[in-house]
This record gives sequence, structure tokens and C-alpha cells, in this order.
Amino acid sequence: MIAKLITEMTRKNAPIVVGLDPMLSYIPEHIKAEAFAEKGETLEGAAEAIWVYNKGLIDATYDLIPAVKPQIAMYEQFGIPGLMAYDKTVKYAKEKGLLVIGDVKRGDIGSTSAAYATGHLGTVQVGSKTYPLFDEDFATVNPYLGSDGIKPFIDVCNSHDKGIFVLVKTSNPSSGEFQDQKVGEKALYELVAEKVNEWGLSSMDGAYSNVGAVVGATYPEMAKVVRSLMPKAVILVPGYGAQGGTGKDLAPFFNPDGTGAIVNSSRGIIAAYKQEKYAHFTEAGFADAARAAVEDMKEDIAKGIA
Amino acid sequence: MIAKLITEMTRKNAPIVVGLDPMLSYIPEHIKAEAFAEKGETLEGAAEAIWVYNKGLIDATYDLIPAVKPQIAMYEQFGIPGLMAYDKTVKYAKEKGLLVIGDVKRGDIGSTSAAYATGHLGTVQVGSKTYPLFDEDFATVNPYLGSDGIKPFIDVCNSHDKGIFVLVKTSNPSSGEFQDQKVGEKALYELVAEKVNEWGLSSMDGAYSNVGAVVGATYPEMAKVVRSLMPKAVILVPGYGAQGGTGKDLAPFFNPDGTGAIVNSSRGIIAAYKQEKYAHFTEAGFADAARAAVEDMKEDIAKGIA
Repeated sequence: MIAKLITEMTRKNAPIVVGLDPMLSYIPEHIKAEAFAEKGETLEGAAEAIWVYNKGLIDATYDLIPAVKPQIAMYEQFGIPGLMAYDKTVKYAKEKGLLVIGDVKRGDIGSTSAAYATGHLGTVQVGSKTYPLFDEDFATVNPYLGSDGIKPFIDVCNSHDKGIFVLVKTSNPSSGEFQDQKVGEKALYELVAEKVNEWGLSSMDGAYSNVGAVVGATYPEMAKVVRSLMPKAVILVPGYGAQGGTGKDLAPFFNPDGTGAIVNSSRGIIAAYKQEKYAHFTEAGFADAARAAVEDMKEDIAKGIA
Repeated sequence: MIAKLITEMTRKNAPIVVGLDPMLSYIPEHIKAEAFAEKGETLEGAAEAIWVYNKGLIDATYDLIPAVKPQIAMYEQFGIPGLMAYDKTVKYAKEKGLLVIGDVKRGDIGSTSAAYATGHLGTVQVGSKTYPLFDEDFATVNPYLGSDGIKPFIDVCNSHDKGIFVLVKTSNPSSGEFQDQKVGEKALYELVAEKVNEWGLSSMDGAYSNVGAVVGATYPEMAKVVRSLMPKAVILVPGYGAQGGTGKDLAPFFNPDGTGAIVNSSRGIIAAYKQEKYAHFTEAGFADAARAAVEDMKEDIAKGIA
């Protein structure tokens, strides 16, 4: 699946992914009013507002970008109706030709990790029948439990042509509390990066591996190190935009040929209409504002990695 | 909420929790046949079989135990219908007076961790209305992202009287790959244990903190160390039974007064009827077999910690 992502990034000239992390506070009032009028101020009403918002964002940007990354927590917080909106969003994005990175940060051990891998990337057997579930193209995975937690995901990557991104160095301020701790000469995140490289060799797909890594845009100096430790891993880069990362911080995440990384922006795109720069689109034009923000992000990154 | 768990463990004289991790292969054939006859070999059929199985297990054991621990991955692998069975199981267990530990191993940063905390332990605001979601009493949480990932959960513990168990040292064979790495004189899991202690001080509830820890039964020598590093944390102990831990391994997890830990068994209870020891109950008597296995586990642990 990583080969397909590389192809789509190259074809659309856009090493970027839009994070569909719908907070109710981002959703324009007219969408919420209509959803609540139809379904009440209920979980179903919230889920409907999220779905309409996401559809607007996807329709306005799908031709410019290779992928979207819905953050499942933002849906899970509305319970089952929220997860139904997640499911609908994943399916709709795929219909529009987008690849979907499920930002689920799952991770457990053995048969439990296998169950998560099934739920997000695989298919389940019920009696004589087989069903896909959430069926994202990629999932993010937490490495704290070691190889036992990762290998069941890799098995499903291989059997179902899917991919994962393993958390290596996250974008948040406190990520260093454990990830930067020195184990001998190396930081823990470097050990994780070495493991990502090792795990990845068992799931190569073209020039890169289906086992990628997450490294925050807020830590460009660390990107240099991990880029060389895991040459076959595509790096998913959160933290651009609202979290502080800028285009010029991004060069170390990419290989010299301009591939090897995909940069996420969530709030900076989906709530662009709330920024002064895009305020002229107004709330009603939230989707056009998102499109303009994607175009600006493409340009900023192209300059940064040139 | 931890005070309530301690009270219930003491009242029922059972520092144990039953893991509701329903694999289809554990569910008796007659339950599956009936569910599939009603709903077909569909995800809804699988979810119905899971629910009937769980209800049988809860009905047969609820008077003996303080809590159940459904592993959400086992439900998520059946998509939305599976998650509806999870939701129904949580609600039913609470109706029967059980506390529910949602084994969700979630963890992200900032507003995303806050969303997970809302979805599992809190309530969400939709317009002028407020709704509970999955509403477990406790959730398991992954620490890899540091304090940014944990604090939003603690906020919800404090506002909604809930608790969390943070992964410190997991029960699986490869848990040492990262968790045992030496940072100076200490192992990483010891640093995490120290943080658990620090985080826990902001959510005390009686003698213990709402911030507990997960330490595998398979690593009793490490339990000694972390027990002293986090005296106010209740330790949730997986890995008893099927994963190899025994009653005599458990003493170091408890404080001298016999409190401070809760031991989980999943397969060993819920699929007890498949063991030679309980085979006389037959498949039809799966729930009675589970009850007998709970009674034996109580005895084994009481001996082990005596």
C-alpha cells in the first residue's frame, strides 16, 4: 500500500495529508443548526454535523491531496453514532480516490493486536462469510509493547496490502519525557526507529516499506537522525501549522529525491476559515477556505524542501 | 473511583477481574448457531453471539467479583456492531453492580487524549445537552507520549470520579524491548512508574490514587521494584493463568495489607470449559465452568498472597 501512497503523492505533487479531526467548535454554525434541526441536540445530531462537515472538506480538496487522516478519538468521543460518522467518512474518502490513514494509535499484544489489525486493516471471518471492517488503508500504531504488538499488524499489511505508521517521536511538548531518554548513547526514539527499520524489511512495497513512522514536525533536528536510521520508512509528520512546524523545518524528513515523508495538517486546513488569512471566505465558505489552505501548504512545503 | 474498587474487592474478598475478551472460537457452538439463525452469518450475528456469551458469563460470576475488563479490540474487530456489543456489555455489567475497566489502551496528545477520555470516561456536550458515552469506570492508557497524553485523562478522572491504569510493564514476552531499556541506572518502566506516582498525587481517592498501573503477572521480580516506586497506585495485573503467571507470583504486586492490586484472568475464566479441569461442565455449562474457575482463582490468589 505504501507504493500507492508514494504514487499518489507524486502524481498530485502533494506530500500532504489533511487531518479530519472534527471538533464541534470547528464546524460552521449553519451545519450544526441543520443537523440539530433534523436529529436534535443528540449524539446522532453531532455525528450528522461531523459527516456533513467532512464531506464538504473532502469534496473541496480531494483532487489536490493523496490522503486524509481522520483522528478516531474525535469520533469516539461521540460514542457509537460518532464511530458511524468515522466509518462513513473513511468509506466516502475512499470513493473519492483518497487513501485513508486511520489515526487510531492502537497497540496491544498478540491476539489483541491482531484483533485491532483486523478491525482497522483486515477482514473478519463470521461462520463461512468474510467481512471488511473500518478498512482504512493505513493505521497509526503505538510501539510501547514491543514487537509482539507490531507483528500482528505487519501480518495484516502483508495479507491485505495495507500499511502502518509506528509512533517514533511525537510532536507534543512532553514527548521527550520517555522518548528522549538516553539508553547508552542513543535516545529511546532512536531505538524505536531502528526497530521500525527492522520490522519494515518484512513488508517492502516498492522503494519503501509498509511500515512507516510518525515523527513530529516540531522536532526537525531529530528527523535527521531517524531519517538515516530507517531509510525505507515513510515518515508521517504531524505538528505542521497549528502545532508550530513550518515548511522550512521539513527538509530533514524527506529523502533527497523529495519522497519519504507525508506532512499532516488538521486544524490549519479544516478550520482555516477561522484564521485571519482566510476569513474572507466566511464561515459559509469553510470548504473553499480549506482548499486555499491546502494550496498554500503545498507551496510552503515545496519551498521548504526545495 | 479507586476507593470504590478497593471497597468492592474487600467486600467480595476477591482482588480479581474477569477479562471479557470474547474470541468467536471461545463462544459455545449453540450460542453461535442461535445468533446466526436469528441474524445470519453477519457482523450483527457475531455481535449477538458475543453479547449472549458475555451476559451468561456476567450472570454466573457477578456476585463473586468486583469488576470485569472487556478488551475493546475483541469488539472493534467486528466493526460498529461489535462496538455496540461492547457498549451493551459495559452497561449490563454496571447494572449488575460490577465496576468496568475498559481495556482500551488509548493514548494521544492534548485535545485528542481529551477526546478519548471523554469517549470512555466522561460526558460530551452537544448544543445544550450532555451525554455519557461508553462510560466505563476505568480505562487503560498508554504512556509513550508522556504527560500530555495522560493529564487529559486525569482531568476527567477528577471531574467524573473515574480512574485509569497506565501501562508500566506489560505481560508479553517482547515487553522488554523498550520497557526494560536502561536509562542510567533505571529501566524505562521504572521511570514510567515514577511518573505514575507523580501523576497519581493529583487524583487521590482514599488510600489509593485514581491513577493506577498495569504490570504483568509474568514479571514478579519487577513488581517488587515498581510497587515501592508507586505506593499509591493500584496495580492491574494481566498475564495470570493462560499467559503463565500463578498465584505464588502475585505476592509482590500487593501491599502487606493485601490491597493494592487486582489480578485479571480472561481466557482462563471465560473459556474455562475448554480446559480438562472444567470439561465436565460441558460446552453448555460454559458459565458454570467460568464460575468454578473464578472460585479456584480466588483460592489460588489468596494462598499466593497469604
